[in-house]
Amino acid sequence: MGFEFTQQRQVEFAETDMAGIVHFANFFRWMESAEHAFLRSLGHSVHASEGGHSTGWPRLKVSCDYSKPLRFEETVEVALSVAEVRTRSVRYAFIIRRSADGEVAARGETVAVHAQLDPVGGRLQAAPIPESLRVQLAARVVAGPPQD
Amino acid sequence: MGFEFTQQRQVEFAETDMAGIVHFANFFRWMESAEHAFLRSLGHSVHASEGGHSTGWPRLKVSCDYSKPLRFEETVEVALSVAEVRTRSVRYAFIIRRSADGEVAARGETVAVHAQLDPVGGRLQAAPIPESLRVQLAARVVAGPPQD
Amino acid sequence: MGFEFTQQRQVEFAETDMAGIVHFANFFRWMESAEHAFLRSLGHSVHASEGGHSTGWPRLKVSCDYSKPLRFEETVEVALSVAEVRTRSVRYAFIIRRSADGEVAARGETVAVHAQLDPVGGRLQAAPIPESLRVQLAARVVAGPPQD
Amino acid sequence: MGFEFTQQRQVEFAETDMAGIVHFANFFRWMESAEHAFLRSLGHSVHASEGGHSTGWPRLKVSCDYSKPLRFEETVEVALSVAEVRTRSVRYAFIIRRSADGEVAARGETVAVHAQLDPVGGRLQAAPIPESLRVQLAARVVAGPPQD
Repeated sequence: MGFEFTQQRQVEFAETDMAGIVHFANFFRWMESAEHAFLRSLGHSVHASEGGHSTGWPRLKVSCDYSKPLRFEETVEVALSVAEVRTRSVRYAFIIRRSADGEVAARGETVAVHAQLDPVGGRLQAAPIPESLRVQLAARVVAGPPQD
Repeated sequence: MGFEFTQQRQVEFAETDMAGIVHFANFFRWMESAEHAFLRSLGHSVHASEGGHSTGWPRLKVSCDYSKPLRFEETVEVALSVAEVRTRSVRYAFIIRRSADGEVAARGETVAVHAQLDPVGGRLQAAPIPESLRVQLAARVVAGPPQD
Repeated sequence: MGFEFTQQRQVEFAETDMAGIVHFANFFRWMESAEHAFLRSLGHSVHASEGGHSTGWPRLKVSCDYSKPLRFEETVEVALSVAEVRTRSVRYAFIIRRSADGEVAARGETVAVHAQLDPVGGRLQAAPIPESLRVQLAARVVAGPPQD
Repeated sequence: MGFEFTQQRQVEFAETDMAGIVHFANFFRWMESAEHAFLRSLGHSVHASEGGHSTGWPRLKVSCDYSKPLRFEETVEVALSVAEVRTRSVRYAFIIRRSADGEVAARGETVAVHAQLDPVGGRLQAAPIPESLRVQLAARVVAGPPQD
């Protein structure tokens, strides 16, 4: 179904923990990496400078459900869907699959806010998503969650 | 009100990202660290050996809502509550506050499964929480989410 | 001149710190990743099981000299040379270059020991490198450090 | 003997890898953390703003020799000595000991450069260490490496 952007990666040794599996917090780094690659694929820089302001995408809300542990050297696919586009934020859905057998290892969701970084105070301020990007994102919104 | 176990920490340089704030995935490492300190406070080792089997607490499900960015050198408090205890899993709720002003930076939740590690195949298998620990955990369950 | 195995990667957001550059400790994760990819390219698993024993390559000694900061989204090349092969250890030399202009960002060195993990006590014990692998590594030893 | 600043910490689960020990790259995060705590103990902020410029301490050169693996939940002491102070850089020596028995787990060295961050181009430029800090550091230089 629906739009999917997919990034492939191989589990690195430093991503494992003493239980012999990928540490659960690393799944969020993978989702972020796929999101950034997706934005680049649309021609948008993730950490842009607009009119002297630096902009970024801090997270508002994230979640992940784990179903299969992943191990060192396994190849995984991080598939991204755009679930919802609002004026200042985007909600993405993710499925992380083990490439060898297509088994779902985890499903996640993140809400990223478009924000401007105030260069003086260093404060982050939510700001409207640039129109050209918002249109591109909205065109990719899928109705349901990504399918297996 | 209810039970709260609190761990204090100071934001390290390596925990920040180029936006000048703590990278969002690190909040999950902090929650895990507080959970482990909590289990130790009950006299239980997190990664125990029981009858030749190694046991651990892989995550089944985690989430986090971010409300304030945290910065280098800030002191934070990670407060943990036991939200629910089941035969094989525990649900924890967390509030992460900036110590200086008590502002809530994030609220999170994790569900950890008690699991045995099969030493041969390296497979993780959900296993009942040892009775003595289950009783201690159940006695600390709070009705609502932790309070500000 | 000499042998070089090269791994390419793109700087991820989570690898940066608040100075806006790749955190220096991540260069060691990159060197390790290149080393593991190199061993796989020779047909050897990094974390093997031999006669019921699990083996690995803990580090004995590492170093890195930094010359240029690396930034988010830059593509880098991690080039590896085998500098020395001993009975139980290998010394690798690394050059990390920014792909865009070939500028050297860092030069590093690591000494990895071949070790067996005692499954009961969990102790690591240095052990001779399997002969077939030692021969392959020795054939790739270069006289000097890798060239720019 | 000489001056030593010591920071204590407890090994966290996320700092281990599938070999069951602390991943070697984390020792550098610990050294950096001790260095920052040391600078704070002298009354200096690590990431300061001076006359509109942001300053920091990027690494020029680091190394570490590993002698004992460290494991989850072990308490460690990171002891720092000032080995050399130059106009724009400081060389630190570190010993990381397991608290339980005082065994040395690793010895490291880092050279940190005092640098200004150009807010426009984002370039890092080496800059003289502020005089008041340089004097404090120089007064703590030890002749030899830190003692066991």
